[in-house]
Amino acid sequence: MKHILAIIDDVYEDLELWYPKIRLEEESWNVVVAAPEAERLYKGKHGYPCVSDAAIADVASDDYDALLVPGGFAPDKLRRDPKVLELVREFDAAGKPIAHICHAGWILISAGVLKGKKTTSTVGIKDDMNNAGAEWIDEPVVIDGNQIASRTPKDLAAFSKALVDMING
Amino acid sequence: MKHILAIIDDVYEDLELWYPKIRLEEESWNVVVAAPEAERLYKGKHGYPCVSDAAIADVASDDYDALLVPGGFAPDKLRRDPKVLELVREFDAAGKPIAHICHAGWILISAGVLKGKKTTSTVGIKDDMNNAGAEWIDEPVVIDGNQIASRTPKDLAAFSKALVDMING
Repeated sequence: MKHILAIIDDVYEDLELWYPKIRLEEESWNVVVAAPEAERLYKGKHGYPCVSDAAIADVASDDYDALLVPGGFAPDKLRRDPKVLELVREFDAAGKPIAHICHAGWILISAGVLKGKKTTSTVGIKDDMNNAGAEWIDEPVVIDGNQIASRTPKDLAAFSKALVDMING
Repeated sequence: MKHILAIIDDVYEDLELWYPKIRLEEESWNVVVAAPEAERLYKGKHGYPCVSDAAIADVASDDYDALLVPGGFAPDKLRRDPKVLELVREFDAAGKPIAHICHAGWILISAGVLKGKKTTSTVGIKDDMNNAGAEWIDEPVVIDGNQIASRTPKDLAAFSKALVDMING
């Protein structure tokens, strides 16, 4: 049994949470959705509801095998939380899979884990990604070490498959 | 390459379309979303947008290997279209997989393809399903012949896996 942590806030990109979450559950794995508050309803960019399982303040990276960071505009809020950045650095330092898509790259920028990394994101933050020291590539999935990156919801099949494969080793 | 037809209208259940659609695309299959009009934007029950690929009036069951019917309240509209019911009957008569979830059962009721079948749906239409001659069962996935049925978005992982497996034979 693998445990995967997903982090969201309001205005998360609906499918970028739900598609990988259900896909990972298809593998009989446990996905925990953490948000600023536990057991509160958060609404996606298009309105899809998600009740959080845990508060970000209460989760520990040691309890998880991988980190999923959906996009939308939630990352604009989440990158301001030092605990979020600490979690990202811990997953990265431990070499555990980190899968981020679309605007989620903002969080990796603020965590300072992109230097010298091949990556991708929505084209909207391409400049931010390059300015953070990454090499931005226009492909559906870019993998560099433990980091998996995709551009938009159109890439979700390949993105989620890459995460499943990386967790499976 | 397999071709799967999905039928929607406004107020389709967002994840019940998108999760199986992307999951089938992960298999490198082609999913065509048909709706009352081609290339029009339809909004899910929670607001997720989907631009239709084709008009229901223009699709032929012969071109497809399976039929996906998402729930939400779209089925309340779609069951009134004789072409929708004809399509369902053609897929059923050909023994091709038909996967329906939640309120999608309404369409199968009106198509008259549930008599003597084990099935499931949202509990909200359980009585309608039984009155149509089906045997309603409270399980995540109920398979009877070529028909796959699930209850709610919580069943999507098992539902979609069952459809992938049935298409793979």
